[in-house]
Amino acid sequence: MTEHKATNVTFHHGSVTRDDRAALLRHKGATLWFTGLSGSGKSTVAVAVEAELTRRRRLCYRLDGDNIRMGLNANLGFSEEDRVENIRRIGEVARLFADAGLIVLSSFISPFRADRDRVRQLHDEHGLPFIEVYIDVSLKTAEARDPKGLYKKARAGAIKDFTGISSPYEPPEQPELTLTTDTMSLEDETAAVIAALEAQGIIPA
Amino acid sequence: MTEHKATNVTFHHGSVTRDDRAALLRHKGATLWFTGLSGSGKSTVAVAVEAELTRRRRLCYRLDGDNIRMGLNANLGFSEEDRVENIRRIGEVARLFADAGLIVLSSFISPFRADRDRVRQLHDEHGLPFIEVYIDVSLKTAEARDPKGLYKKARAGAIKDFTGISSPYEPPEQPELTLTTDTMSLEDETAAVIAALEAQGIIPA
Repeated sequence: MTEHKATNVTFHHGSVTRDDRAALLRHKGATLWFTGLSGSGKSTVAVAVEAELTRRRRLCYRLDGDNIRMGLNANLGFSEEDRVENIRRIGEVARLFADAGLIVLSSFISPFRADRDRVRQLHDEHGLPFIEVYIDVSLKTAEARDPKGLYKKARAGAIKDFTGISSPYEPPEQPELTLTTDTMSLEDETAAVIAALEAQGIIPA
Repeated sequence: MTEHKATNVTFHHGSVTRDDRAALLRHKGATLWFTGLSGSGKSTVAVAVEAELTRRRRLCYRLDGDNIRMGLNANLGFSEEDRVENIRRIGEVARLFADAGLIVLSSFISPFRADRDRVRQLHDEHGLPFIEVYIDVSLKTAEARDPKGLYKKARAGAIKDFTGISSPYEPPEQPELTLTTDTMSLEDETAAVIAALEAQGIIPA
């Protein structure tokens, strides 16, 4: 049935629309914006959600430090101006991917509320779902994990403006979803994100 | 058969790979880089190819002035430095989309060989197909069309550094495909691009 429906894609004035792509993919595009301290578990959750979505045959793509900082944003440093521009560009790319029909999983600390809110507004303006997922762990927990040894370096003064130590983290005021990795299992966190996508009608329940 | 194969997607170390996405989409990611004078017909061809690919149930996405200049590259002007950065960012975004499994259709004048070659190199480094499509029309034809009235403005001196008038266009030396819109029909051009995708094994023949 769905297969048949999708072959009846109609082209409007010869130009393919967002709806055409959604019909082909059988789900809507959206941005999942994971935010939280370094070591909070953003990437771990994003990887788990990506695996589950792919298992369900939904097309998604992760934006993270590995594919952004070395490429698109390789010409940005860590000044305040550059950190704002870093998140702005990631937000614009996420918007393009969501418009293309993918479920984007963006995992960057993105510590400043104003920067995240601009990305939310951009999605709103283009009628695209923006789901802010706050990974809420205590600094104590994140610092105890310290998977990359960054807190240790920051405490030693080797990293300037490190979020949580020498630069603030501003928690979201009204995130669509809060995951408390202090107490939730990875399975529970993944299930909560999937449930949020279902609740918003982005993927079928 | 294909349907069955795609449900057997294997996850490597929990992280979804390019191959997993290709199995899901049943085609490979690639960048089609259309280059040519203003008024050469880049967008017209890109729109026609997009429609044909979507009819064949292949996921593609167009990058053009409409979704890039107003968004990601809104903070760039037309200085030499900014024009280089404009193409660099578009190249990086195209690379991400191709990695995500989409067939990207990029249509920008992109007049300088060095800028295009950097985008090609970036794709090569990441093992992603880059297909340079040169839209070869005479300046006379492009200027006679002048769909946006830009040549008229450039001749009047109202636009600085306008490609073909007051700034050079450097044709590709070895493009994967050359379309001579002076003599080819839009149907022929579209068929030639589709044939190139088939020949490279990006979509099934």
